[in-house]
Parts: sequence; structure tokens; C-alpha cells
Amino acid sequence: MKSGNVVNLLQGLAPAGSEEVFESLVQRPGFRLERILSWGQVTPEDEWYDQAEDEWVLLLTGAARLLVEGQEALALVPGDTVLLPAHCRHRVIWTDPAQVTVWLALHFPSEGSPE
Amino acid sequence: MKSGNVVNLLQGLAPAGSEEVFESLVQRPGFRLERILSWGQVTPEDEWYDQAEDEWVLLLTGAARLLVEGQEALALVPGDTVLLPAHCRHRVIWTDPAQVTVWLALHFPSEGSPE
Repeated sequence: MKSGNVVNLLQGLAPAGSEEVFESLVQRPGFRLERILSWGQVTPEDEWYDQAEDEWVLLLTGAARLLVEGQEALALVPGDTVLLPAHCRHRVIWTDPAQVTVWLALHFPSEGSPE
Repeated sequence: MKSGNVVNLLQGLAPAGSEEVFESLVQRPGFRLERILSWGQVTPEDEWYDQAEDEWVLLLTGAARLLVEGQEALALVPGDTVLLPAHCRHRVIWTDPAQVTVWLALHFPSEGSPE
């Protein structure tokens, strides 16, 4: 990403029915910021995200349901954020197939364990 | 911010006419993530932000104009992001007084200089 230039995260998106897209926006030693575009995709059946790093996620537009192991499913709307500690197992069980869902995800080392 | 809980960045905001609000969302050794609420506020006349760290900013809702020294003013709409390197002097010259402008700002050490 070039300095001082404007990049819009919600415009010029791939059309409906496209593959899920993971795109790194800014990457530094202390974090990795990415945009994720979902068009109805979910985490594959019986799979869980189980990550070595903490993750902070923000739903920018669209709609999704996130399941954190041992909790009720979370219905996410634009502006919703969730902090997912390392090894907090979670799955995306629904994203709206009728529109694009744009996520911002910030990944960073866990405070507890030097992994 | 508590793990696994949903926090919405666009709901339950202070009413129009309020003071500008800077709120830290997540802070770690490698970055500081904050939300800024503007209700028409701008950078004071003749003042510039001149920061020791890099900053990545995202306009979530509302409208603003950002002036980077030596450039044309940037008219920002929702989804717009700008990367502002350390010591890149900039000013917010307008935020829409008719609505809240919600910014997400990520501050992190500059790659170039170990400050």
C-alpha cells in the first residue's frame, strides 16, 4: 500500500459468486492486517480455526455468523468486532450469499505465550 | 476489550454536537488500534499532525477531508484507507457536521527508524 494514497476497501470488489479472497493490507513485525471478502463461504464442515496468534476481526459490510467453541453463535452486523485469543477455536458458519461480506482482520502475537 | 464478546463500533454513539472522542480498542507492543468519533471537528488552524509512528487510517462512516502536506486534499468516504508514514504532516480540514464520522486508526512503529 503506497503512502498518502487512498485505497477503498468496499469499492471495486469482485462480483458475487467469486472465490473467498484474503488480501494482506499492511504487514509489520508486530501485526498483519488483512481484508477478507466472503460471498457466502463458510469454514469447511468440521474444521475449526485454531490460530497461534490473537486476532481482532471487524465486519465492515455484509452479514455473518461466527461460532466460538463453547459459546452461542454470534450474528455479526456491520461495525461488529470480536477479539479472538490464540487457540480460541472458531468457525464462520454463515456469510450472506446475497451480498459480499467484507472483513478486516488484525493478527498479532499473543500476550501470554511467546509463539 | 473482552475476548469472544461482540463490540460494535457504529452503534450507541454519543449524539451530534459532542466532543471528539479518541478511544483505544486494542494495544500491544507492536501497535495501538483506536476509534475516533468526529462531529464536524477538524485539526486546529495552523496545526499539523507530525507523528513519530506510522498510521493507517480507515473511515468507517461519515465523510472527511484530509490534507497531507504538499498534496491535494483527499475527500474520504466510507471504506477509504490512507497510510501515513511517520512525520508525514497531515491535517483533517473537514468532517461532516451533519453526521458522525467514525475512524479506525492503527498506529505502529515506523519501519525505517527505530524511534
